[in-house]
Amino acid sequence: MSAPSPDAAAIPDFAAVIPAGGVGSRLWPLSRPDRPKFLLDVLGEGRTLLQATLDRVQPLADITMVVTGARHVAAVAEQLPTLTEADVVAEPSPRDSMAAIALAAAILERRHGPIVIGSFAADQVIRKPSAFDAAVREAVEVARAGKVVTIGVEPTGPSEAFGYIEAGGLIGTTARDVATFTEKPDAATAATFLATGRYLWNAGMFVVRTDVLLAHLGRLQPGILAGVRELGAAWDGPGRDDALARWWPTLTRIAIDHAIAEPVAAHGGVAVIPADLDWNDVGDFDSLAGLFSPRPDGVIEVNRGDVTAVEDAPGAVVIGGDRPVVVIGIPHAVVVDSGDALLVTTRIAAQQVKNAAKLVGQQRL
Amino acid sequence: MSAPSPDAAAIPDFAAVIPAGGVGSRLWPLSRPDRPKFLLDVLGEGRTLLQATLDRVQPLADITMVVTGARHVAAVAEQLPTLTEADVVAEPSPRDSMAAIALAAAILERRHGPIVIGSFAADQVIRKPSAFDAAVREAVEVARAGKVVTIGVEPTGPSEAFGYIEAGGLIGTTARDVATFTEKPDAATAATFLATGRYLWNAGMFVVRTDVLLAHLGRLQPGILAGVRELGAAWDGPGRDDALARWWPTLTRIAIDHAIAEPVAAHGGVAVIPADLDWNDVGDFDSLAGLFSPRPDGVIEVNRGDVTAVEDAPGAVVIGGDRPVVVIGIPHAVVVDSGDALLVTTRIAAQQVKNAAKLVGQQRL
Repeated sequence: MSAPSPDAAAIPDFAAVIPAGGVGSRLWPLSRPDRPKFLLDVLGEGRTLLQATLDRVQPLADITMVVTGARHVAAVAEQLPTLTEADVVAEPSPRDSMAAIALAAAILERRHGPIVIGSFAADQVIRKPSAFDAAVREAVEVARAGKVVTIGVEPTGPSEAFGYIEAGGLIGTTARDVATFTEKPDAATAATFLATGRYLWNAGMFVVRTDVLLAHLGRLQPGILAGVRELGAAWDGPGRDDALARWWPTLTRIAIDHAIAEPVAAHGGVAVIPADLDWNDVGDFDSLAGLFSPRPDGVIEVNRGDVTAVEDAPGAVVIGGDRPVVVIGIPHAVVVDSGDALLVTTRIAAQQVKNAAKLVGQQRL
Repeated sequence: MSAPSPDAAAIPDFAAVIPAGGVGSRLWPLSRPDRPKFLLDVLGEGRTLLQATLDRVQPLADITMVVTGARHVAAVAEQLPTLTEADVVAEPSPRDSMAAIALAAAILERRHGPIVIGSFAADQVIRKPSAFDAAVREAVEVARAGKVVTIGVEPTGPSEAFGYIEAGGLIGTTARDVATFTEKPDAATAATFLATGRYLWNAGMFVVRTDVLLAHLGRLQPGILAGVRELGAAWDGPGRDDALARWWPTLTRIAIDHAIAEPVAAHGGVAVIPADLDWNDVGDFDSLAGLFSPRPDGVIEVNRGDVTAVEDAPGAVVIGGDRPVVVIGIPHAVVVDSGDALLVTTRIAAQQVKNAAKLVGQQRL
């Protein structure tokens, strides 16, 4: 939960949009298509990533909207009982982040007129909620002036796992113009980025007025704008299903970064709020392990129901399971005992886990 | 089962003694104090190691005696229904191989007069039973002439895991004098041994006349002889328990190799039958893996109930379990899913598994 702050009241005319998509395939076997990462309590703290996201944004926004796949609507509603049916938007099929956010913007603008929306993914961890709170409040102010605003995460190392945002001149209390967005760099490039002090991680958090967003869309992705205008108009009436059948398949699959953030930044239309959030995208088991304090012997245990013992396996990570696990001779081993499947890898190979489900499928042939 | 041979009849006045002891701690979590290695069907072929040992020796010997710990007598009897109660000797506590074999010799000599006994451990795999059969038959002939005879395994590589027997001059069809016994050497020494062509692995198989064995004992370990004479005299009468309570704790803990084989060899009293047995002591998971043919991708699966998938893990070994296992980025990984515990290690670290139960115990404190 967000710590109380001087600005504890919700931000007027502000809606939080939570795109809840993606399997989290690098967290196999914890995550599966029918139990994606955002529905999991990966921290073992009693709240799923989706619930924790709602906990963070609800104090900021009187309006909250979750956009998720049709197959997950029931689970989302069950996990978020404070939301109404109107607050959960079901996508018939995944069409990437631009379609999801544009649809939410179109629906919200029809309901409330032009407002500011903030898009916050459902599967991230933020350990400094008051810093998040402050960053969103400033982002909304900057967005009201017409900018597309992103919240940039202060890097803690030269990660190759994230895109980078190059910040330019100061335009607010902490807000800066965005010079460029860069896709995931190699380690050497990432290190040169960090040395400049100007680069931030792109965490995919965008704050923007609905009318500004939709105007950019009209210029850059007119097909998406046309579709979501039709969907927005039909959404709260009897024509929703027909409109979805007609328009949803026409929407270009593209990420909001490529569709809006990068081209708009090139014309000076994007700002960034640098924020020290203690942020983690829980992208793989290496990231997940980083959220836990090691034992005195360096072992990291997550959600374990029995003992973990190691020999010659410094930094071993053992996740899940209710029986003893012994790891011998594999430094930085990662063992995930999910009950219905078992993964054995290393922190260095954690990115390769995205292939795990496919590998199992091939063996089942 | 032994293949039929020209000598398919049992050897007259010959008893097979099967010491069934040792937990097999390097096979944790498959083996445990209450389910030691010899009681397990580690090959998944429907016969435990103990049963397979009996299958090998029963065609050779009209008399078979198993010596095991008191806690395992019931399991041994259940696995070997063709044995009578008199054929299973219960040790109140483990006192190493010399006490076990000497007790068997003393009991058998009281029952049958001086005969030849052959001692064959209950937890080894021999894939060439007809070669074993032939070796034992020659060993018994040489033993009748008064020698302590061991069956030496033709080495397949410079293993550091076994003791070595240096063979001397030929004294029978294939039997040779034993020049020396050497404890487990380092790899370089083992390689020089192999280069001479004179060295054999010591598999702990001894064939000897009871009266010869007991005479050597009287000279070399008179305390053990005195104790087992008393126990042999009392065994089949009402005084067994009293004799065990009185004498068993007095028996020196020593292996037959040190107590008899080495000192007797120094005086020319030991012979060896070199044998190409396709022998495996199933000493650890590396040895166990060597008993199975790899899949085309190099993966070795043992007793698995679901698929095994790997990436960047050549030579991975996965044992047990009825759920999918994925191994990524750990060459020669060893994963043992026993249901009630999980071991993750490598073939190179397989010897260290002997510490596993202790490591778990320490974590439980």
